[in-house]
Amino acid sequence: MKTYKEISSLAYTPGKGFTGKYQKLIKDKVIPYQYRVLNDLNEDTEKSHVVRNFLNAAKALKNEDTDDGFYGMVFQDSDAAKWLEAVAYSLALFPDKDLEKTADGLIGIIASAQDTDGYLNTYYTVKDKDKRWTNILEGHELYCSGHFIEAACAYFEATGKDTLLKVMTKNADHIYDVFIKDGHEGYPGHPEIELALLRLYEITKEEKYLSLAKHFIDIRGVDPRYYEKERQRRNWTVWNGDGRNHEYQQSAAPVREQKDAVGHSVRAVYLYTAMADLAARTDDTELFKACKNLWNSITGKRMYITGAIGSTVHGEAFTVDYDLPGDTVYGETCASIGLMFFARQMLQNEIKGEYADIMERAFYNTVLAGMEITGERFFYVNPLEVIPGISQKACTHHHILTQRPKWYTCACCPPNVARLVSSLGTYAYGESDTTCCCHLFCDGKIKFRNGLTLTCETDYPYDFTVKYTVSGKGRLAVRIPRWSKTYTLKVNSKETYAEEKDGYVYFSVNDGDEITLNLDGTPKFIYANRKIPALTGMTAVMRGPLVYCFEGIDNEKNILFLSLKRNGEIKEKTITDATLGETVMLEIEGYKAECEDSLYSENEPTYTPCILRAVPYYLWGNRGENQMRVWLNMI
Amino acid sequence: MKTYKEISSLAYTPGKGFTGKYQKLIKDKVIPYQYRVLNDLNEDTEKSHVVRNFLNAAKALKNEDTDDGFYGMVFQDSDAAKWLEAVAYSLALFPDKDLEKTADGLIGIIASAQDTDGYLNTYYTVKDKDKRWTNILEGHELYCSGHFIEAACAYFEATGKDTLLKVMTKNADHIYDVFIKDGHEGYPGHPEIELALLRLYEITKEEKYLSLAKHFIDIRGVDPRYYEKERQRRNWTVWNGDGRNHEYQQSAAPVREQKDAVGHSVRAVYLYTAMADLAARTDDTELFKACKNLWNSITGKRMYITGAIGSTVHGEAFTVDYDLPGDTVYGETCASIGLMFFARQMLQNEIKGEYADIMERAFYNTVLAGMEITGERFFYVNPLEVIPGISQKACTHHHILTQRPKWYTCACCPPNVARLVSSLGTYAYGESDTTCCCHLFCDGKIKFRNGLTLTCETDYPYDFTVKYTVSGKGRLAVRIPRWSKTYTLKVNSKETYAEEKDGYVYFSVNDGDEITLNLDGTPKFIYANRKIPALTGMTAVMRGPLVYCFEGIDNEKNILFLSLKRNGEIKEKTITDATLGETVMLEIEGYKAECEDSLYSENEPTYTPCILRAVPYYLWGNRGENQMRVWLNMI
Repeated sequence: MKTYKEISSLAYTPGKGFTGKYQKLIKDKVIPYQYRVLNDLNEDTEKSHVVRNFLNAAKALKNEDTDDGFYGMVFQDSDAAKWLEAVAYSLALFPDKDLEKTADGLIGIIASAQDTDGYLNTYYTVKDKDKRWTNILEGHELYCSGHFIEAACAYFEATGKDTLLKVMTKNADHIYDVFIKDGHEGYPGHPEIELALLRLYEITKEEKYLSLAKHFIDIRGVDPRYYEKERQRRNWTVWNGDGRNHEYQQSAAPVREQKDAVGHSVRAVYLYTAMADLAARTDDTELFKACKNLWNSITGKRMYITGAIGSTVHGEAFTVDYDLPGDTVYGETCASIGLMFFARQMLQNEIKGEYADIMERAFYNTVLAGMEITGERFFYVNPLEVIPGISQKACTHHHILTQRPKWYTCACCPPNVARLVSSLGTYAYGESDTTCCCHLFCDGKIKFRNGLTLTCETDYPYDFTVKYTVSGKGRLAVRIPRWSKTYTLKVNSKETYAEEKDGYVYFSVNDGDEITLNLDGTPKFIYANRKIPALTGMTAVMRGPLVYCFEGIDNEKNILFLSLKRNGEIKEKTITDATLGETVMLEIEGYKAECEDSLYSENEPTYTPCILRAVPYYLWGNRGENQMRVWLNMI
Repeated sequence: MKTYKEISSLAYTPGKGFTGKYQKLIKDKVIPYQYRVLNDLNEDTEKSHVVRNFLNAAKALKNEDTDDGFYGMVFQDSDAAKWLEAVAYSLALFPDKDLEKTADGLIGIIASAQDTDGYLNTYYTVKDKDKRWTNILEGHELYCSGHFIEAACAYFEATGKDTLLKVMTKNADHIYDVFIKDGHEGYPGHPEIELALLRLYEITKEEKYLSLAKHFIDIRGVDPRYYEKERQRRNWTVWNGDGRNHEYQQSAAPVREQKDAVGHSVRAVYLYTAMADLAARTDDTELFKACKNLWNSITGKRMYITGAIGSTVHGEAFTVDYDLPGDTVYGETCASIGLMFFARQMLQNEIKGEYADIMERAFYNTVLAGMEITGERFFYVNPLEVIPGISQKACTHHHILTQRPKWYTCACCPPNVARLVSSLGTYAYGESDTTCCCHLFCDGKIKFRNGLTLTCETDYPYDFTVKYTVSGKGRLAVRIPRWSKTYTLKVNSKETYAEEKDGYVYFSVNDGDEITLNLDGTPKFIYANRKIPALTGMTAVMRGPLVYCFEGIDNEKNILFLSLKRNGEIKEKTITDATLGETVMLEIEGYKAECEDSLYSENEPTYTPCILRAVPYYLWGNRGENQMRVWLNMI
């Protein structure tokens, strides 16, 4: 049994740095904004109705008229769960009695929608109780329960209040009865409850939640045709799903035999997260091996430079190795969040820099790009190339929005960003019996369970000096990102050579120690593997963990005509943009092409030297519709 | 009224050169092969049943049992029509009594399936007579009639036999009655009959065929919602079409107001062909202006270097300007054939090199690539990049077959190639009252209506010397392809400076003159317009009209790692390949990359100089499954 786990949400207090500012934005803007959305109080915004669904479900339980009935996706409930979970993390960071009261109110409403047997799902309670558990493929009952279990665990941890936890243990007990005692067949159509049950087990130590999670993981894909049989047993569907696409639903084979990351990418990484968590908890080496294979499949063959995953809109899915088009990518925000979940659980199994490297890549690029810097608009799809006129217009590009909408009919991503950002400390820091781990560089104060306290100060990801002040004593493992070719580590101003292993430096610290880590975030060109057909000859630019992109607004409105200069100079320029605020722009030597009007010409375009301007990818699309590209050709 | 028109199919006798060999292949292999397919005599080949459909329709008309009923697409009849049309052209080139007898037999079967009122369509006659003319959107009755009208005209012209012509004039009269006399609403779901009626008018001089063609063209898009209304009136569909996608069906606006080439690309170019023909016949300048706009839209913004059109599988359609992905292209063989139709009719309006340039581009690249060199396998989709493992495998690439199948459920392309190749002389040569035009360089003998006879000798498209021997006298217009930067024209060995206009040289010839045209087909790099996002920094290679491609088999199985060298040398090497026969391979200076295993790396790949080998694109995929690319990056 491994002893490593992430820190508690209460163990981290943000500082005034980059991630702390984002967490403050979630508290000040995003959480209130989303609460208004959930209550349909925002004008010109996609309808949510999620709170009304709960109020109506409560009425339905009392056989009262449900007024305006159920509205939204079959998993509409989960938006409220994710919002509550975000609130829980935010309260852990920034105690706020008013917000807590608001959340308590919503929890009361949710509790009132729970049936006496523990069942909780407004879609079925309002619309048709008889359909309960008949459509595990599409029905999302287990998915919604999973999200409420996560919210309950988080809220209990942050506030000590157990109202929602009681609701959800009752709900989990009900699910246990249905699937274990009563032997209901099937495994979750959209994985989520597996990872949630493991969290519930972590908090309650109730073995049956562990065994239920294990049950769902173990039976997945054992009968790949389960969903087809289920479909034949019922006369209704949500989206006409027939269960035949075994890859889509990660059910083509038992999970321990799965090697390639396939199907709906959010479902995939949620499943793999639970698998990795279970593997660590149960020392299941076979399961962990499958996780490693799936991890390697994603990060070695099926991931974008931004940490986006899911190459196609069709099924919001992975496709095949090296198929990574930037202009028609899906790259759902939730999928990159899920990739961070997966990485965090892989760290439970082994402390290796590659997991935190990917966690960081996904966070600072795709996850943050998923939200406008105002906190009030969101991307679901995260393209690496946007060309107005093609993006959103060509039928193959309809899903490539050029601007962030206020909300979505399927609103999974916005509250997912909120809960991820608010809980970032639990990704950044973890600990085992022997070692306190710093995976990400988030400034703030971290209280490890063993008594060691670190105060981290840094302007990361723009500056690459990270300072830790130690209170107490212990052993530290600090990650050296793969992109940092060199680094210096100083303890009390004295350069120190620490043991290096798998992307971490390990060293002991004493009370009062001041540690300074200097990483090398010099901007550099990044070259794509030639096996990726979409990126032949293309080059990107990164600075530290930040992928950069070229936007029209910074480059005379025309990106398509720009090329990078081989061995060209990259200058860093700190700017304060009216919209973006302070950021580091890169000014890069390059060329602007001039070419004939015809589609094809025997005359090579002429190239005039010019300076290309790039901004961090996570900031793209904040200044109006314009062209954007991450990859340019090099001359 | 313009006097220009193409030569008759009888006016051209092929020589022993490139196009003549292809025409011989059509006669010797393709026509017999396809006849076996149409009669379901080929093993392991997609079922056709088209001849049985006619036999069964004849039975249905006599209220006899139709045995095995109707099988196939709603437009299955048209496969037989296109085969007959190909036979007609082939008979004009290579008289063959046995083949003519076979064709006469099929014509008899077809005639027997015509109803007393002139109606002819086996789908409706076998399945449900009451559905006639109720589904103009999807029903393809007008489309099939159009193809049989074309076959009838071609067969009459080639053989003087009018059995099928009588059948089809009766059928056209019936259609006239239905749509003009009885005032049936609607315009063709799949344009084809318009261009066919104009051919029928050309042969019969019966004004009502002209007026019916004009009617269908004129009313198209006047009521864009016609199809939606039609859908509401009936309780059946073929493919659940609702008629709402006005772009797909080229009905968003009256044709004279259409500016961008949109929708199903085959339907589009068939329509534009008829528009251009009608514009020439009726001196309709407004209609011609629309044709010019649509031509410019295609060739200036929506066409692949190979003359392929239709960027997406979704609706087999055009998308938007400069959206030209090579790996997910549709590029249907029929669409490039239709582009040749359109070009030929544009030449009726004005003799400009750009039309013949595109005709040539489509023919020597996409159209010929549509058929295996054996003549027994065919491509429907013509990609510019094939990577086994991604092509055909990723859901976005399912339609990108890596090898030509023997036949298709929807078998429009194979017989279309057969009729196009066999009638190539009518694309290559045309004449007005004053001038005999040589648009394409096809060796053989051409008898113009004005008495002038040319004998053309050339090894084009591999050699760029074209020799004409004149019998009689007159004025010639010979096209100078745009790709030929320089040329020399010699009359009786004496260099001659002829009047040059719009891509043609004009000069008078006398009996016995020997004319030698030397074009410059030096292989060269071709650069894509930077507005095409999919081709940023990519370069192709052409030699004369031939686009070249890089195949794995010639390049150590790995194309993705290859780059062209800027200003690199291109050597021509005539080879005799066991499968391809004699062809000119290009050996081009380039580099082979070596890169790290990771998806992304800060280390630029290392490039080792090497020789890249390219073969003409039309030959690709004849030597087993392998990688293929037209565009490479340049270093």
